[in-house]
Amino acid sequence: MQLGMIGLGRMGGNIVRRLMANGHECVVYDQSIAQVGALAEHGAIGTSSLEALVGELATPRAIWVMLPAGTVTEEVVQHLGALLDPGDILIDGGNSFWKDDVRRAKELAEKGIRYVDVGTSGGVWGKDRGYCMMIGGTKDAVQHLDPILATLAPGIGTIERTRRPAGADPRPEQGYLHCGPSGSGHFVKMVHNGIEYGLMQAFAEGFDIMRHADSPLLPEEHRFSLDLPDIAEVWRRGSVVSSWLLDLTAMALAEDPALDGFEGSVADSGEGRWTINAAIEEAVPADVLSAALYVRFRSRQQNTFAEKLLSAMRHKFGGHVETPKD
Amino acid sequence: MQLGMIGLGRMGGNIVRRLMANGHECVVYDQSIAQVGALAEHGAIGTSSLEALVGELATPRAIWVMLPAGTVTEEVVQHLGALLDPGDILIDGGNSFWKDDVRRAKELAEKGIRYVDVGTSGGVWGKDRGYCMMIGGTKDAVQHLDPILATLAPGIGTIERTRRPAGADPRPEQGYLHCGPSGSGHFVKMVHNGIEYGLMQAFAEGFDIMRHADSPLLPEEHRFSLDLPDIAEVWRRGSVVSSWLLDLTAMALAEDPALDGFEGSVADSGEGRWTINAAIEEAVPADVLSAALYVRFRSRQQNTFAEKLLSAMRHKFGGHVETPKD
Amino acid sequence: MQLGMIGLGRMGGNIVRRLMANGHECVVYDQSIAQVGALAEHGAIGTSSLEALVGELATPRAIWVMLPAGTVTEEVVQHLGALLDPGDILIDGGNSFWKDDVRRAKELAEKGIRYVDVGTSGGVWGKDRGYCMMIGGTKDAVQHLDPILATLAPGIGTIERTRRPAGADPRPEQGYLHCGPSGSGHFVKMVHNGIEYGLMQAFAEGFDIMRHADSPLLPEEHRFSLDLPDIAEVWRRGSVVSSWLLDLTAMALAEDPALDGFEGSVADSGEGRWTINAAIEEAVPADVLSAALYVRFRSRQQNTFAEKLLSAMRHKFGGHVETPKD
Amino acid sequence: MQLGMIGLGRMGGNIVRRLMANGHECVVYDQSIAQVGALAEHGAIGTSSLEALVGELATPRAIWVMLPAGTVTEEVVQHLGALLDPGDILIDGGNSFWKDDVRRAKELAEKGIRYVDVGTSGGVWGKDRGYCMMIGGTKDAVQHLDPILATLAPGIGTIERTRRPAGADPRPEQGYLHCGPSGSGHFVKMVHNGIEYGLMQAFAEGFDIMRHADSPLLPEEHRFSLDLPDIAEVWRRGSVVSSWLLDLTAMALAEDPALDGFEGSVADSGEGRWTINAAIEEAVPADVLSAALYVRFRSRQQNTFAEKLLSAMRHKFGGHVETPKD
Repeated sequence: MQLGMIGLGRMGGNIVRRLMANGHECVVYDQSIAQVGALAEHGAIGTSSLEALVGELATPRAIWVMLPAGTVTEEVVQHLGALLDPGDILIDGGNSFWKDDVRRAKELAEKGIRYVDVGTSGGVWGKDRGYCMMIGGTKDAVQHLDPILATLAPGIGTIERTRRPAGADPRPEQGYLHCGPSGSGHFVKMVHNGIEYGLMQAFAEGFDIMRHADSPLLPEEHRFSLDLPDIAEVWRRGSVVSSWLLDLTAMALAEDPALDGFEGSVADSGEGRWTINAAIEEAVPADVLSAALYVRFRSRQQNTFAEKLLSAMRHKFGGHVETPKD
Repeated sequence: MQLGMIGLGRMGGNIVRRLMANGHECVVYDQSIAQVGALAEHGAIGTSSLEALVGELATPRAIWVMLPAGTVTEEVVQHLGALLDPGDILIDGGNSFWKDDVRRAKELAEKGIRYVDVGTSGGVWGKDRGYCMMIGGTKDAVQHLDPILATLAPGIGTIERTRRPAGADPRPEQGYLHCGPSGSGHFVKMVHNGIEYGLMQAFAEGFDIMRHADSPLLPEEHRFSLDLPDIAEVWRRGSVVSSWLLDLTAMALAEDPALDGFEGSVADSGEGRWTINAAIEEAVPADVLSAALYVRFRSRQQNTFAEKLLSAMRHKFGGHVETPKD
Repeated sequence: MQLGMIGLGRMGGNIVRRLMANGHECVVYDQSIAQVGALAEHGAIGTSSLEALVGELATPRAIWVMLPAGTVTEEVVQHLGALLDPGDILIDGGNSFWKDDVRRAKELAEKGIRYVDVGTSGGVWGKDRGYCMMIGGTKDAVQHLDPILATLAPGIGTIERTRRPAGADPRPEQGYLHCGPSGSGHFVKMVHNGIEYGLMQAFAEGFDIMRHADSPLLPEEHRFSLDLPDIAEVWRRGSVVSSWLLDLTAMALAEDPALDGFEGSVADSGEGRWTINAAIEEAVPADVLSAALYVRFRSRQQNTFAEKLLSAMRHKFGGHVETPKD
Repeated sequence: MQLGMIGLGRMGGNIVRRLMANGHECVVYDQSIAQVGALAEHGAIGTSSLEALVGELATPRAIWVMLPAGTVTEEVVQHLGALLDPGDILIDGGNSFWKDDVRRAKELAEKGIRYVDVGTSGGVWGKDRGYCMMIGGTKDAVQHLDPILATLAPGIGTIERTRRPAGADPRPEQGYLHCGPSGSGHFVKMVHNGIEYGLMQAFAEGFDIMRHADSPLLPEEHRFSLDLPDIAEVWRRGSVVSSWLLDLTAMALAEDPALDGFEGSVADSGEGRWTINAAIEEAVPADVLSAALYVRFRSRQQNTFAEKLLSAMRHKFGGHVETPKD
């Protein structure tokens, strides 16, 4: 089917590539003419303004906005709200705050525009592996987008299937889920990222403890000099902690066992903070997720080995560069 | 090769089965005659005492003790110490405290007996999937046991290979690792379990937040009724949090979406506590791992949904039964 | 001077009594006629509506609103905004969210009304001990209220004086502080309460550890049966942890050493949650304050001894009743 | 009465001074001849060896060891064990690990020597304010030492009395407590220090949040520039958080509002770590006390304002110098 894409950075550009490689038609816009040109060479229809992009699309239009959360996304959504027609679908695939989705969906619904929020996980690996998508919006809008979503999702792959009840929604097995009304997609994505912080921190602390197993604070007969790359590798097979984050850890350690290339100053995007805010609003204790967030706050003023590992994992799965040492 | 096995419970029995299925010869002992008989029927050589077991084995003997950590294991190790000959290998495959390993190895070395500690992960799935093993002991002892270890390990399987430096130890890729001298195997296994607590708790908190997304504490327009089984399922494909613990979570939720079958009173074995003790000895901050431990202490006096999920995951991966509701 | 008081509950009523006992004139209103009557008997001028109260006061009026934070306070503030004249002062002495103060101050300033937020600590003891007050507003408004504030504050008392720089503001020594513009009073009060949670939890955990010093989990030679009331008492003299919360703890334990009269289901008002939100907005790690908050969330589903102690302390300092056992 | 004192550092020397000022006779020893001489000038009987000190004392002897916990104390206790007679009392007033007390008491009891452990709080202020003492040992030994203990304790002072049951032990009101058998004194002192860490951290986080109330991360209308010295001062009167640690905070901030003189690298003695170990042994959750400990571990690799405040408080109450900036 046809999709308009606004924002052709790492995520938006790769989504377009994956879609076109599977026969979809993409109309694209970015404030960088170079980015538009690059995709036009690969078959996308390039445009030079939001108005032009809207003009190129057949109704009901489907437009995916893939921009940094916050002011930029808000402005584009507001602008599109003025350009679109009833029945059109406006997708925010970035990392917007879910309460903004709730508000926008309500505002746009007054004009008959259907707003869909898509939390997208997969990072730089997504173009090839596919994107795990958590989607909020009305049933009809999400249904309309199904060809796009099915293409972007990883698909059932070789992963062992869960024994699910008869009649279960088949989409989660493909890697995308209609979570509920607008906002719920980004809400689930937010919690996903909150969990991610916790998982990363659990690994980081454990490896920190192992790295200091030869600490002079210990009596000599209780010191061990452990090979962290080999430990990460061995846990990948048959252990309870096997996971994608461990795979990435093993890669990072194999390349740089002491993680000398990382400072350990760990950024945090909004999702970790919003997750804690949500926990507090619901009166749900979230000790681990909070501690993981605070370590990041703290790390930006210092560097432990644990934090270096966090940086290394983020670099691996998202290409984030956190002040490499030199 | 030939191995003596003491302790034929869930773990010991399955290890023997996996070894015999791959052509190894097992001499077995358990204080339960029935357990000995059951394995004898499948080809093991049954014995009725430690002395008899020792008598059946060719020197240098290799004996694997697979008993509950603590007094029972200690007594058997001491008893065997009196029976074995120089050059024999005594393996503790249970969850012993690593400082006990250090002490035992030193004591037994005085008699020429080689002590090897093996931290074993894999739970009830190990017989088929193989066991991830973390091994402490001398190079020659571990080398001698290689045929056994290679059989028990999961093998390289279909898991994508990490790009490791030339000359890297091939064993971690097979799922077993010689970590260092005696005690280091159980040390690494201990940290593995500490991390496991943290990973489980991160998932548990996240799902708890999602379960309460329809809390009456929230304004009505901000409430969502989320389908947790579908969320666990969708995250299994392409997301950053994909992991074996998530696979188990998806199974548990598919069967019992509200986890009504679980009380949420979560046991803890020694490893979580020892991990914190190690962190403190090394002066390494371990906020997440500690918080995860404390939630378990706390849960034994109460039940949140998060804790129910911890129980559900433990039930899935280890068959642990934690006071099911009815 | 003359003050209007709206809300004659425990806090508002006692403030009026303390003011009248020191020669100030109070015009009072409450939706309960009985409460108005009770204070009128002691010399207050009773009124039966906000309009009547406003009518009784000389300009520039000073009106103190002492109502539950949230909708009730908001409505009264809005209503008064319509009734008051330029130059009048509207005081919110409750536990309002500081961002509401910022907004209200701005709205009211457009009409020339001066808004002052006063965070008030002291609980049921305040009538006699005086109230510690943290004040936000313009310099002229706060200066105008000084006679009232000086009367309500505890005064310098017998507490040893801090060596402060020459020219330091004398008011903090008296127990009241002009913190800054509107909102800053409640902001400082909010953090005060956040700290309070942390202090309470530190004591609660310590006493919990001592209560379990005779736990059967310990080897017999390491068990102690400790007298908690005596320990609380001895720490009141010369120790580093001496504090008002410890005084209250000693009282509670002297009356009920096992705290059998408490369930341990601990409420939390908004300040603890807002403190964490503020920490997150500022990217300041707040591990201890968060943990203290989460214990309360958790406690409402269960009861440890530590939580019983929290309840006991809250009962002592604020008269809060948290589901006493019988 | 007569007391032997071994170790004439800040604590031991001041204890001797306070005792002599109140008519007790002190026989003193220190490996520094200068320290012995200094006290001899003020009336103490100086000695030049443990043997000489033992020789100067009338039986049953009472000897107070006030040395750094660990090897030094252990050696002196062992040495004295060989020199003393049945009925003599050996006091460890340092910060020994309570399990060492249990062991020593048992060993010495075999020779008829009475071992008493005294946890002593009060720091550099103790000489004048008196020491809060937590005592473990047999009833007869503690009774025998009562004249010494009563002199060292702060006494009932001007602190408001708790309403205690008739027949309550009068000693806690004086500032000393017989906690139970040997080891219990240091156990209670250990928990005291654990709590102290938690209290300090609660204040530290709160002040950190207030210091960052003008963070550029906040929208401009929500920023406040707060006067921390004044806030600490105002809370000292009438607020729930009033405490000795707050008094010290107010002093520190009055002298150096930005705490520029502190690095924020915060040491920890054993008690905080042992408290967590005890909590884990008892399966008691200790989130706040653990977090407070971990912040110190963390701080020794970096400096936040919160940690600077911890340093400042420790400097104030204990004279500890933690790498002042320059």
